[in-house]
Amino acid sequence: MASPGQRTPGDARRYFELSPQFPMKRGGVLHGARVAYETWGELSASRDNAILILTGLSPNAHAAANEDDPTPGWWQDMLGPGKPIDTSRWFVICVNTLGSCKGSTGPASINPDTGRLYRLDFPELSLEDAANAAHELVSGLGVARLACLIGNSMGGMTALAYLSMHPGSARAHISISTAPQAQPFSIAIRSLQREAIRLDPDWQLGQYDDEHYPDAGMSIARKLGVITYRSAMEWVGRFARIRLDSEKRDDEPFAAEFQVESYLAGHAKRFVRNFDPNCYLYLSRASDWFDIAEHGGGDASAGLARIHLERALVIGVSTDILFPLSQQEEIAAGLRQGGADVDFVALDSPQGHDAFLVDIDGFGGAIAPFLGSL
Amino acid sequence: MASPGQRTPGDARRYFELSPQFPMKRGGVLHGARVAYETWGELSASRDNAILILTGLSPNAHAAANEDDPTPGWWQDMLGPGKPIDTSRWFVICVNTLGSCKGSTGPASINPDTGRLYRLDFPELSLEDAANAAHELVSGLGVARLACLIGNSMGGMTALAYLSMHPGSARAHISISTAPQAQPFSIAIRSLQREAIRLDPDWQLGQYDDEHYPDAGMSIARKLGVITYRSAMEWVGRFARIRLDSEKRDDEPFAAEFQVESYLAGHAKRFVRNFDPNCYLYLSRASDWFDIAEHGGGDASAGLARIHLERALVIGVSTDILFPLSQQEEIAAGLRQGGADVDFVALDSPQGHDAFLVDIDGFGGAIAPFLGSL
Repeated sequence: MASPGQRTPGDARRYFELSPQFPMKRGGVLHGARVAYETWGELSASRDNAILILTGLSPNAHAAANEDDPTPGWWQDMLGPGKPIDTSRWFVICVNTLGSCKGSTGPASINPDTGRLYRLDFPELSLEDAANAAHELVSGLGVARLACLIGNSMGGMTALAYLSMHPGSARAHISISTAPQAQPFSIAIRSLQREAIRLDPDWQLGQYDDEHYPDAGMSIARKLGVITYRSAMEWVGRFARIRLDSEKRDDEPFAAEFQVESYLAGHAKRFVRNFDPNCYLYLSRASDWFDIAEHGGGDASAGLARIHLERALVIGVSTDILFPLSQQEEIAAGLRQGGADVDFVALDSPQGHDAFLVDIDGFGGAIAPFLGSL
Repeated sequence: MASPGQRTPGDARRYFELSPQFPMKRGGVLHGARVAYETWGELSASRDNAILILTGLSPNAHAAANEDDPTPGWWQDMLGPGKPIDTSRWFVICVNTLGSCKGSTGPASINPDTGRLYRLDFPELSLEDAANAAHELVSGLGVARLACLIGNSMGGMTALAYLSMHPGSARAHISISTAPQAQPFSIAIRSLQREAIRLDPDWQLGQYDDEHYPDAGMSIARKLGVITYRSAMEWVGRFARIRLDSEKRDDEPFAAEFQVESYLAGHAKRFVRNFDPNCYLYLSRASDWFDIAEHGGGDASAGLARIHLERALVIGVSTDILFPLSQQEEIAAGLRQGGADVDFVALDSPQGHDAFLVDIDGFGGAIAPFLGSL
């Protein structure tokens, strides 16, 4: 675990200081908090070409290579000159979510009131807080109105919060594989991921360190994530029942034997020590809490219909079990009711929820013409 | 944890001694092993009215109330006089799977060679072993040929092994929500369930006891099971985003807050100390290993086509993510190729994989006329 102030490769290179007393939705205030962000392209003189990207739970702000950091980002093929999000035209901002551990203030940051890590003393985090932090950043960069707000997965929920709380803050919106509210299946999955971490004896109510770290719990949480982020259909073609070579097998009882198990282990290994467990718990719970109905007097459709946009593009994937297509249809219908001209694209990408990260043909093929028409 | 010889409520009341030297597919021999079973109805003089039920991973042999045990069983509404499996006509046998802990010999039984529990000294278990044990039981009860073999979930795979290894052993077959081979998504889920148990420090390579028992790992394994046994669609209607009453909430950080979390906790609580963790590991791995292709020279379709039946009924559920409808179609096509007259029924039950336990209208509505026509 990197200490909070320390830059790790791929972490954002720029920071924005939030209001000295940043109020949190569910109570409490952050003192001296900041968000990490990166940018691509140039803001136009009329400041009307800004796009903000709000991310899923784990990505940092490094969506693609830029001058500050030439390493490839998590949306490398989507973002850049001549790419679907064309940075020769657009000024693109990507922000690390408030509460994350990739440069923004969160449970793994120092609490200035005590000089120690926040850990579980961090106030309860909601996606509305993350949205407000992102809005402060955008305003601070001199952008009064975004040309387009893009949100995928958890970031799509944050985007709906952003648009609800800051009317007129964006002309257009691209909503990707997200939800107007967490459904019980997704809550169940995320609750179990949190439980795996909490039940790990090394979690110690958040007081872990490098020597005693909840590796096992984080590994289970990540593997369950990967299982639900992809699709059964993709894996039939990709892994079938292929066995590991015998020299790649552990000797321990019930060790991995199939390639799909080794694939999951690889994902877990890359994640476990690269994402702070307490931050994971906070962001995961914030996803469960999010409900656009709270912005619509208790009704989800009304919450969506109160968002007024000129244009919107809503994209979903038929193989996504975590954010099913029916929820993307619900978002499209609600935004349409709010007056937006909405394009709805249902993709049959086999990669499930993660398709937006890898099916650049499918997603880029929808995003490029939409942005081109703005 | 009940000690191995001890009867617990709902466990089978009858035992059948297997061959003194029962050979296991992957090597090793069981000495003095037995299977627990129950029966309903009367075997006809011509011994041609016997039905065998092979179960999923966790159920015992008590499928329904009978003279030995009047408590309701796990398929109570399916089985009995005048019910879809009509015990006034059929002699019905249900066997507890070899390797389980509900009366049959398994890792939680005493190893007669050492006088101690087998634990991980139990030989590697395959579903073919479970099928052979069930076949010995049926023969021992004086039945040369079953009128019908019924298998659901893991029991459906065991049934395919049974039919493959014992040609002519059944006239008809009912295959329910199962697989001709485990797909990578199901392997991933089961592998993660096993990992949760294995990573629990109290598992201790299988050497747990009542004081140090892998409760946390078993709880995670069971909850993940329940999540994948049901369907997202059912839960939207059943739980939506209903919160727990505040007095039902724990004070600990990140405690359950939604009804769906409490539902999962209830399932886990009922399971954790009522199923032996080592038995769970053995049966779960056996499910991953099963592949009908091994009975077809490396080809799954050929393996199915080598099974010769007069009649078959194959039932699947569109919301089943663990044993998808496509695999039921594969079974139906294969059995048809083997010469059987096959009825295929796809149900839209919202309950996912578990539908056969609860959607008695749907499943009974298919099973009753099929059995009636035999």
